[in-house]
Amino acid sequence: MADGQFTRPDGFDGLETPCLLLDADRLTANVATMRAGLDRLGVTLRPHLKTAKSLDVARIAMASPSGPATVSTLREAEHFAEGGVRDLIYAVGIAPQKLDRVGAIRRRWGADLAIVLDSIEQANAVVAWSRRTGDPMPVLIEVDADGHRSGVDPRDADTLVAIGRVLSDGASLRGVLLHAGDSYGLTEPAALKAAAEAERAAAVAAAAILRGAGLPCPVVSVGSTPTARYADNLDGITEVRAGVFMIGDLFQAGVGSCRIDEIALTVLTTVIGHQREKGWIITDAGWMALSRDRGTARQAVDQGYGIACDMAGQPYPDLIVRDANQEHGIVALRPGSSAPLPDLPIGARLRILPNHACATGAQHDRYHVVADGRLTGAVWPRINGW
Amino acid sequence: MADGQFTRPDGFDGLETPCLLLDADRLTANVATMRAGLDRLGVTLRPHLKTAKSLDVARIAMASPSGPATVSTLREAEHFAEGGVRDLIYAVGIAPQKLDRVGAIRRRWGADLAIVLDSIEQANAVVAWSRRTGDPMPVLIEVDADGHRSGVDPRDADTLVAIGRVLSDGASLRGVLLHAGDSYGLTEPAALKAAAEAERAAAVAAAAILRGAGLPCPVVSVGSTPTARYADNLDGITEVRAGVFMIGDLFQAGVGSCRIDEIALTVLTTVIGHQREKGWIITDAGWMALSRDRGTARQAVDQGYGIACDMAGQPYPDLIVRDANQEHGIVALRPGSSAPLPDLPIGARLRILPNHACATGAQHDRYHVVADGRLTGAVWPRINGW
Repeated sequence: MADGQFTRPDGFDGLETPCLLLDADRLTANVATMRAGLDRLGVTLRPHLKTAKSLDVARIAMASPSGPATVSTLREAEHFAEGGVRDLIYAVGIAPQKLDRVGAIRRRWGADLAIVLDSIEQANAVVAWSRRTGDPMPVLIEVDADGHRSGVDPRDADTLVAIGRVLSDGASLRGVLLHAGDSYGLTEPAALKAAAEAERAAAVAAAAILRGAGLPCPVVSVGSTPTARYADNLDGITEVRAGVFMIGDLFQAGVGSCRIDEIALTVLTTVIGHQREKGWIITDAGWMALSRDRGTARQAVDQGYGIACDMAGQPYPDLIVRDANQEHGIVALRPGSSAPLPDLPIGARLRILPNHACATGAQHDRYHVVADGRLTGAVWPRINGW
Repeated sequence: MADGQFTRPDGFDGLETPCLLLDADRLTANVATMRAGLDRLGVTLRPHLKTAKSLDVARIAMASPSGPATVSTLREAEHFAEGGVRDLIYAVGIAPQKLDRVGAIRRRWGADLAIVLDSIEQANAVVAWSRRTGDPMPVLIEVDADGHRSGVDPRDADTLVAIGRVLSDGASLRGVLLHAGDSYGLTEPAALKAAAEAERAAAVAAAAILRGAGLPCPVVSVGSTPTARYADNLDGITEVRAGVFMIGDLFQAGVGSCRIDEIALTVLTTVIGHQREKGWIITDAGWMALSRDRGTARQAVDQGYGIACDMAGQPYPDLIVRDANQEHGIVALRPGSSAPLPDLPIGARLRILPNHACATGAQHDRYHVVADGRLTGAVWPRINGW
């Protein structure tokens, strides 16, 4: 085999592998589907930018170039504020040491960047900071939807009201924020609808407690991709935060939040070897390119490190990344499969659908944009770090 | 709690969290230990730079500023060649499309960058490239030590000699290269010694086949951190490639390749909340900062997403990162532990020992250097990507 015989009209051959391909048609359709669903329910979409970490993607996902949007790091807040986003929630509990950096983002770009917290200690630190700086920091109280992670128990009226009263004396109480993270462990539509309703009910209850104590609660914010897809009533909710929906991944497909043919992200990889008697095709996309995320290992269908697709994005029957080393992927048929192993010689290229878009994306610093099955030539930078 | 009360004399408070801390004392000691061991066995250390991906670390690990060293990506090869390293092996099977980039690195920096392959197809492509460019590409034939991944079966003399003969007609046959990756699944010293001897024997056998056919084989290269630590005879081997040894991690500690108090890498994190009735301490180091690597889940002691240490680097008894979301770590006692839960208020800081140095490092773009238990002020950049 001579070098130089790999040219195809789709333009992919000019790319170094491994790299990320982002299907802009699927991205746009996923955003439209989510937006239409939330429009029907009468709530605002505040897309979470932690999955894509790209200003180009954000501009497709957001209602306007200024937002609203959600971020998971202050590095993201800085990047998107620099890019013109003005309505932001940093949806991870605040550490007092980070308040100066939050304040700098608010000042430098005139951004309405709000923070979240779930304790009186944090509220005291925020009020001290607000008084010292003269900037009444906008705050959402994090409420625990399902025991998944952080947040005040929505039945703990004393703590909710105590935090609210502390904040009202110098900071700005913006509302409540919840994340139904346990929905990621569900798969049945009825259970997902129930999780969405439980998230809604907890949010509305917490807001009622604050309002009943004479405290403001203009924002009632919920969000996770599965509950956002399955909610059929969001009465009392003002906004939904969700992120992975715009790209999708095999884990979300396993939950039932998207179809496999809606996933907008693949890793482009090149065949670098074979172990023919084992049925192994060795590629240059190992876990460094795919991430160590094996989220589907706990689901009904274990997709290994991802599903192997042809260059048109069609999955090969039963062909998955069975194992991965740092820079080697081992592509093989699923255990027990009798599907034919495709003939993929040295230098052939594959596209791998990932377990988890957030984790796989984070291994890369750019997206190569695909539309109509071809490279558009656009390269969208993405950020990482804190 | 007011903000600004977190200042400590060790200098850590100026750091944004999460971030990487690298203990230069431990790093230097780990390198000295490995070098002394290999010196006793009379072989050269060719450190693998895929773990650290840092020129500053490389200069500590290498015998000289020009190498030798090993890399896992061409991005690493470019970075280290730019930084003065001249003797490099790119130890991942070559795709023909990458030969021009290899050639450019060789030309631009005058680097002796060698490649590896394990098929006649690749050898043909390399010879065609070498003839076309007039650069006789140096090549090591990858030999399969243990069925772990890539490589020619060392008993398959026909294929070894056929590849060697193709290469000798235009490229430059440099030798053989093996990686005993299955050693990562071992824990018993006797089994590790046996894996090291099996790797050595396979390498020597493959070299003998090439030499017996009148082909050159000046380099006989083996390497994995466990076998490098446990080998007690490397007769016939010219060099050892190993990488994670210089930093260490909980997975290697589980194998027996290092002690926990030799691990040079921690993730600095800040407490951002509590769920007190569950015994949870919530931190700002989630899987994005720690990586999704859960390598110790399959070992005798599951360390969760890492061991939680105080600011001096001492593990708290039985305190681990029990679970992680993207930007949240859930720190709690091991299941069944009766150790006391330390009192770590909002804003307190912890250091997390990671499962896997290669994976955790890759989530970050710099190391903050610690020596004598304090920040030195040095920041060592690290690279990612391809």
